[in-house]
Parts: sequence; C-alpha cells; structure tokens
Amino acid sequence: MSKYAIGVDFGTESGRAVLVDVADGTEVATAVYPYSHGVIDEKLPIPGKEIRLEPDWALQDPQDYIRTFQNTVPAVLEASGVNAEDVIGIGIDFTACTMLPVKRDGTPLCDLPAFRENPHAWVKLWKHHAAQPEADRINDVARQMDQDWLDRYGGKISSEWFFSKVLQILDEAPEVYAAADRLIEAADWVVWQLTGIETRNSCTAGYKAIWSKREGFPEPSYFGALDPRLENVVDEKMSRDIRPIGDRAGSLTRQAAQWTGLRPGTAVAIANVDAHVAVPAATVTEPGRMVMIMGTSICHMVLGDAEHAVPGMCGYVEDGIIPGLFGYEAGQSCVGDHFAWFVENCVPAAYEEEASKRGMDIHALLEEKAARLRPGESGLLALDWWNGNRSVLVDVDLTGLLLGATLATKPEEIYRALIEATAFGTRVIVDTFQLNEVPVNELVACGGLPEKNKLLMQIYADVTRREIKVTASTQTPALGSAMFGAVAAGKAAGGYDSIYEAAKTMAHLKEESYQPIAENQKVYEKLFAEYLHLHDYFGRGENDVMKTLKKIRAEVRHVA
Amino acid sequence: MSKYAIGVDFGTESGRAVLVDVADGTEVATAVYPYSHGVIDEKLPIPGKEIRLEPDWALQDPQDYIRTFQNTVPAVLEASGVNAEDVIGIGIDFTACTMLPVKRDGTPLCDLPAFRENPHAWVKLWKHHAAQPEADRINDVARQMDQDWLDRYGGKISSEWFFSKVLQILDEAPEVYAAADRLIEAADWVVWQLTGIETRNSCTAGYKAIWSKREGFPEPSYFGALDPRLENVVDEKMSRDIRPIGDRAGSLTRQAAQWTGLRPGTAVAIANVDAHVAVPAATVTEPGRMVMIMGTSICHMVLGDAEHAVPGMCGYVEDGIIPGLFGYEAGQSCVGDHFAWFVENCVPAAYEEEASKRGMDIHALLEEKAARLRPGESGLLALDWWNGNRSVLVDVDLTGLLLGATLATKPEEIYRALIEATAFGTRVIVDTFQLNEVPVNELVACGGLPEKNKLLMQIYADVTRREIKVTASTQTPALGSAMFGAVAAGKAAGGYDSIYEAAKTMAHLKEESYQPIAENQKVYEKLFAEYLHLHDYFGRGENDVMKTLKKIRAEVRHVA
Repeated sequence: MSKYAIGVDFGTESGRAVLVDVADGTEVATAVYPYSHGVIDEKLPIPGKEIRLEPDWALQDPQDYIRTFQNTVPAVLEASGVNAEDVIGIGIDFTACTMLPVKRDGTPLCDLPAFRENPHAWVKLWKHHAAQPEADRINDVARQMDQDWLDRYGGKISSEWFFSKVLQILDEAPEVYAAADRLIEAADWVVWQLTGIETRNSCTAGYKAIWSKREGFPEPSYFGALDPRLENVVDEKMSRDIRPIGDRAGSLTRQAAQWTGLRPGTAVAIANVDAHVAVPAATVTEPGRMVMIMGTSICHMVLGDAEHAVPGMCGYVEDGIIPGLFGYEAGQSCVGDHFAWFVENCVPAAYEEEASKRGMDIHALLEEKAARLRPGESGLLALDWWNGNRSVLVDVDLTGLLLGATLATKPEEIYRALIEATAFGTRVIVDTFQLNEVPVNELVACGGLPEKNKLLMQIYADVTRREIKVTASTQTPALGSAMFGAVAAGKAAGGYDSIYEAAKTMAHLKEESYQPIAENQKVYEKLFAEYLHLHDYFGRGENDVMKTLKKIRAEVRHVA
Repeated sequence: MSKYAIGVDFGTESGRAVLVDVADGTEVATAVYPYSHGVIDEKLPIPGKEIRLEPDWALQDPQDYIRTFQNTVPAVLEASGVNAEDVIGIGIDFTACTMLPVKRDGTPLCDLPAFRENPHAWVKLWKHHAAQPEADRINDVARQMDQDWLDRYGGKISSEWFFSKVLQILDEAPEVYAAADRLIEAADWVVWQLTGIETRNSCTAGYKAIWSKREGFPEPSYFGALDPRLENVVDEKMSRDIRPIGDRAGSLTRQAAQWTGLRPGTAVAIANVDAHVAVPAATVTEPGRMVMIMGTSICHMVLGDAEHAVPGMCGYVEDGIIPGLFGYEAGQSCVGDHFAWFVENCVPAAYEEEASKRGMDIHALLEEKAARLRPGESGLLALDWWNGNRSVLVDVDLTGLLLGATLATKPEEIYRALIEATAFGTRVIVDTFQLNEVPVNELVACGGLPEKNKLLMQIYADVTRREIKVTASTQTPALGSAMFGAVAAGKAAGGYDSIYEAAKTMAHLKEESYQPIAENQKVYEKLFAEYLHLHDYFGRGENDVMKTLKKIRAEVRHVA
C-alpha cells in the first residue's frame, strides 16, 4: 500500500498543498488557495473602517493561513482519491521573516477586538520594508558593541528580519509589544495551530533572528542597549528551545484534523522556509552543490562542513538547511523583477504587436530576439541593482546602471544585458563562496525562471563556468515540505528516518542540463572583468553617486 | 517698392528656399524640394546596376542641388507674387563638410560615364563616416609632426571633415583622386553653378579644411607625410584664395537665371554653412551670446574678439561666422536623436495607446508626464553619449550611460534624465568656453527643438543658469542665407552693406524667453557635480570600459 505525505507551501499571495507519493516523490495532486486578503499594503481589511498603511508596509491576515489548510488539504485528498489513513506526515514551509504578535494560547493580537484596528497587531510579511530605521539601529549598536554575530550575516542585519520588525512594534506601538505574550514566525505559528504545541525552528531562528546553535541569541545587554524594554525579549516573548530542521514538531490535533480531513495524530514536521526547504527537494544534501531558487529574486543555498564567514552573504546557520551541516545563504534582490520591469516600462508597441500577431508571450519574443545575439555583441553592460544589492555588497541604496548604449541599441540588447548582469551578480556570489572555502562545483536551479527562459540558463552556465542542473519538480518548496513530513513520520510509519534518505528517492533532477560553451565563456570572462570593475567602483564607496542621487531625491520629495 | 532676397538652405534630406522681405525680414514664401535620391547609403541610384555601399557611407547626387534651385525658387516667386526684378540677392547655406570631386569646368566626376559607377566619384555627405582610419592617420601624423593647428580644432580632426574624406578617396580610389581637377565643398560648388565662378568660403575652409586666415593651410610637407601623392593637394585641387563670409561671390549667370526665374546678374553671396549662417539670423553679431542650433544634434556658436584655444571645441575660425570676429563652434552629437531613439525603442505600448487616445504626439505625452517631475525626483542620471561625445571630449567611442534605475523607474523619468543629460552636456561646453576667456552670457536657441519642447528649454535654462531666448524664425538658416544675399547686393541695390546692418532689421527674437528658476538651479548644481564626476571618470580615461566594450563587440562581430 502506497504512503503519502503532504507539503504546504505558504507563499506571498497564496498557499499551495501538494500530495506526494513517499516512495518516489511523485506529485499526485496540487491545490492552491489565494489568500482572501492577499498582501495588505494599503489599508486594513476591516469593513467600514479606513485604516490606511504607511508606504513600505506589507501585512497579512493569519486567518488566511488557516483557510489555506481548510481549502487545499481536503482538495488534494479529493483530487488524488488518497485515503487520509495513507497520509503519514505533513510539513510546511513559509516566507520569512514573516512574523506576528500572539497571546500565550496562540491567538493573534489582530484577532482580538482591542487590537484589530492597530496595524502592528497584524502579520508583518517578509516584504514589509518600514523597519529600516530600526535595522539601522540594530546594526549601529551591534558595531559599537562589537558583536561577533554580525559576521555571520555578511556584516548587516536586514530591515526584513525578525528583530527589526520587533523593534518597530516597540517603537511605534508599545502597547502591542506589551500585550504580545509571544513574538513568533508565522511558520512556527501555523505548526503550532496544527499540533497545539509551540515550537521554534532552527532555520528562521538562525537566518532571521540572530540565533546560532553554538552561541544562542545575542546577550540581553545588547537588546537592552537597543531599548531597555527589549532587554529580555528572548526570555519574555520567544524561546531558547530551538528545534533542528528535520525534527517532528508533534501530531495533528483533532481540530486541525477537522480542518484538513487528515487523521488526528498525523506527524507534523518542524516548520521550514520556502527557499531552504527546496534544497533537499533539489537533491542537494551535501556540500559543493549550490541550489538557486530563481524567480523574482534568487536565493543561493549551499551546504558546508565547516564554519566560514563569507562576506556579504545573507547568513549561515548550523542545521539551518540540512541537519548536521552549515547552511549558507546568499541572495540577489532583483532577477525576474528586472525583466518584469523591463517589459512593463521599456518594450515598444511594435514588439507587443509582433508578439501578439505571432501568439507569443512578450518575454518569449524578447528571448528569441536576444538569443540571436552573441555574447559581447550588444556592447552593453549593466549593474543588476534595480532593487539594491543583497550579496555581496549588502546595500539597498545601490541602484541600476546601463552602460554602452548607442543610437543603434535595440530593446532585445538591453534585455539580454539585464540577464547577463544578473548572471554576473551570481558569478560574484559563487566566486566569493569559493574564495572563502565554501566550494561551489555545480549549480542546481529551481523556481519559475528555469522553466521560462532557456537563454537565461545558458548565460548563467557560460558566466559561472559551471554545469547547471534543473529540478524535475516545478514546486520544489512544497515537495521539500512533503519530504520533511515523511521524515517527521519516520521509517516505521512508512516514511524515512532522515532527510538524506528521503532526498535519495523523493527528489529528482531533469535529464537535460546546461553546459558552459567554451567560446561564450571566453567573451564573458572579459565582460565580467569590466562588470567587477564597475561593481567595486560604484558598490564599494569609491563613487557614491547612487546614494547621493537617492539623498537628493529624498530632499526634493521632502520639500514638496 | 519692397526689395527681397532669397535664401536657399541645403539640408540632409531636402533643399528649402525662403523669400524674405529685405526691409524687416518677413518670410514671405517658402518652398521645399525633397532630394530625389535623398541620402544614398545602400546602393548607387543607377537603374539596372547593383552597386552597394559599405556600412557608414552616405552619398548624395549633385544634380539634386540643381533640381532644388529649379523647383524651389520659381515656387517662392510664384507663391509670393514677387517680381524677379525686386529680388536683389540670393544666398545659400549647406551641410558641411559635404564635398565632391569635379572637373576643371565644375562637372562632377559622378556625372561622367567613366566614373558614374564609382561611389568615390559622388558627393560625400557630412555624415559619411567611413573615413575614420584616414582621420586617425591625419591626427596621428599631426601629433607626430607637432602641428600647431590641431589646437584650433580641440585637438582632433573629425572623420567627417574635408581632408579625411579626400584621403579616403586617395586611399581607396586613386583614379578618382587623379581625375579630380578640383576637390570642393558642395556649398562652394552650388555657388559656382549659380555664378560661373569658383569661389571658396572662409567658413567651410576654416571649420572643415584646416585653413586659417593668418596661417593658411597646413604645409605641403605635412600632406606629403600623409601620402606623397597628397603633398600639393591645396595647390593642385583646391585654392588658397579664401573669401570671407559676407562677400559677394558674383552674379547669377544666364543659365542659373533660367533655372530659377530670377534676373541674370542678381547678386550671389559667398557660400555658408547651415549652422553658422543661423547666427546673425538669431540676432547675434557680437561676442557673449551663444547661439544653439538645436535639432537632432546641437551646434553651439559663439563669437569672440580674440583668439583662444578652447579644449574640445569643433574649431574657431577668424571671419568664420561674422567678418571681423573669431567664430567659435562646439557641438553635441546627439540631442534630438536621443529622444527619437528613446521613443522608438523604449516607450511601452500603454503610452502609445494613451497618446493615441488623447490625440497627442508621443513626445508631447512624455513631455507632459516628465514636466510633472521635479528636478532630482527621478533619482536618475545619464551621460548623453549615445552617439559619442563631440565637445568637449572629442571621442566618438564613448557610449551612453543611465544610472540610478530602480523597479519604480518610469519611462518619463528616463526621458527626462536624457533631456537633463544633454543639458549637462551643454553646461560643460558653456563652462569650458567661459573658463577659456570666451564669455557666454546669454543663450539664443533656434532649430526644431525649441519649438517642440518647452520642458527641455526650461531645463537648459536651469542647468546652464542663463536666460535662453528663441529666434522668431523657425527657418533661421534660410533666413540667414537671405540676409547674406541682401548684403551681397549691397545698400545701393536696396540691401545692406554689412551683415551687422542686415541683422539689426531682418533678424528677430520671440518676446518670451526662458529664465532660470532658482530652486531648480540649486538641485541641478548638485546633479551637475555628479554628472561631471562621471563625465571625467568615463570620458578622460580613468575607466575605459566603453571602449573595451566596443573592442569586444568588434572582435565578436569579426569572428562571426
């Protein structure tokens, strides 16, 4: 009798459940629930009330997560015809850091009438960017106090991360901070709702909340220096009991069983993060193979045997991706977003017409035209910083650059230059890991882009000088979560005793891969040298024009 | 009884005649003749023959100039009802350097059957760009031989100029060079056709053919060093009798009177160049006021009492614009062309739709949207080098740069940044003149752009910190030519004895002008500082990435 596991992937706009055959990873059924309130970035969804949000805010409604369980899990059971008895485990992954303040029993503050109209009581989504002043304070105080842990995060804590968001609540809504018994990642909160037990996972704690297995959280004195009321935040509102990825969090409660149609007692895995959970689903459970989750942005994940501070990475966490190994993460903030911006703002009507006449997607048309160009033929070079630079410069104030345009420059040349720029950005990351004793021998790609753009994949292979393999699954996070669900259930229940075993049978790559082409590589080496020169000139302070322009812009807007 | 003069302006695509009232400059009638062969840049217009041209070639048919006289002059006489008796003079202006090889009697070599199929026998238009290797040689040898005259041309002779084109003929078609009794500017050739007398004007000789009133042409030893066959080019195929602007070339021959419907004996002015002839038509006959002829590119003209070597200018010539003064010329190679490129390649379909719905020109829509932005608000900065940089860097291999783009960047922001970049380019030119003792107190604009784009004009005023006046006439070259026609006729015949007098009554400015706005100026000073920093970094050799990219491109194209 076949056994099954379910992975639930909580994305930015929707949640997705996938029911997977534990024996070989076959994805039997999928269901998607678009959140009823989506991303809340203009006003709170309270009928009859006009409570508007400041710019850069991004919230969610925690009940949308419960509704995801209620809608998607019964749907995959029904679509597959699989018996709930044969579903041995469930795992979830989430965007991160996406966090919320809750009461001791897990009730979100925003569900209490007293706090419903306070935006700070709602879920702060990963892309809530309003906590930059708090992030600046966190970094300044850390440098002043010489905090070693800064090195683990490439020298900078992001405004997106846990304590930046916590500190913003404390700064702007101390009553919400005071009323919150627990401050918790949404990932851990949904597992709590499934199992009735509050657990904290090593992945979000490590990558987003400055925790490490060996050193724990920063000292209370550090938090106290940020704000005296924050001194004991960990002991008062969080937990020091951080559970490694791959553990079982608990079993499905009777209530959660009712939501989902699964058996009470079904194994539930410790929560995980969408990007990180994709790594074993991309067959990677060992050092040397970098996983790239390629979509609007790129997350780069690689495993290491030992601890190395790699400049400009997003962080490294022991047990953060695979138990027993250091999980290194780096990132590019703007990849697919680049091309979307380009298509929306820079593609002339004649191209739209051609695409429409030929029944093609405009991206496909641009790819077709760009693919006819040889490397170096456009004479263009770009810096891929339209949304700042995460790795390795860790600087949100950097901006985009396009150089080499002439009156003969065509849209497809710019399009290709943007692709190449993001490939050069990846090359910088790969080279930086390699230089810091975290080897990267092969790349494994997953996410939306590899499916959509073969030209882009070939350019990445040429620029990075490495073979790129592609995952067989197009929903690797959900598959990864299902794999961890099977591990939570254990071998005795028909699952696996470790994620290593699960990956061997449940994760697959496509047969075809992208091999670097020698003559392209040669030209790209020359272009990359020029990219690096500009990268360092504009990115490392020699010419701060990008920041000066942002400052002038801010002054101009302030005056108006 | 009113007296009239006719100006004929020979442009790139067409010739235009304007009949002007000598008393007050009223433009009574205009007629345009589109050249039947236009710009010849693909193949020679010989029926039944496939004689293709190399890239960068641009030729014309000299008979199109004769047809211009035959078509336009009778048309303005007819449209105005003016009697040929009352037309006292005719002047012409031309693109330059536009030159051709002819026989001793003025017959163009391309009109002889023996040479008709040889592209080098045809008129080489100003934008024939295939003589770059020859220009390089001219510059290299000049530097080796320490030729002082290089300083008069900002340190570099252009591939567009007279001797570059001559040397290309000698290099590639020595039989054409040998058969040419005369090598002559088309401007002087058409005056020859009108008068039966070969004259050479000081404007093209000075700006395009390395002549100066005090030093004449370079020594035969210099020409001999370029190629022994070229040693006596001036004495063999040109003339040392250079006539100042404002002189009378001669009188209309009987044949030319038949072509035009004018009286035989009508005064004909010495030839002039389109940009230079516009200066008195823009009311400028004294130092301190710079004329900008603003169209696809900008020509900057300013008069000076004394001789100063201004780095990077196109040249200065005594008697080159106004007799008795030094005429300084600088240029920006790409202004209107920038916006045309942008509109063709970078404006999304949604904008085209909006423009079409509202019945607007797309440029007008972009201007409207861009005008809503405040200086500095876009966060963008560009280097206006899509077509290289003429003044002050004199480097055709520089390319365009756009910096500061984010995912929120809109097309109108890029459009405005391109306008601002060209304004910064003009500011560099103005500052360079000022610094080198050629004062620029006021700007006078003419050409197509001032009519079309008020936003652009305001930005130029803000960036240059100077009032900008605009000519009343929209066809200043033709008006200027008519003014010189009236001067050729002289006071006794109802005209004027000098261009100073003619300008006082015949040239006019609009009442409205553009005044710098203090708060805009303040922001633009900051942006200009950043522009200048990038300008020098990429333009003066600190980072040669633009040239490296061009080199890589050339290699890639060569391999293919």
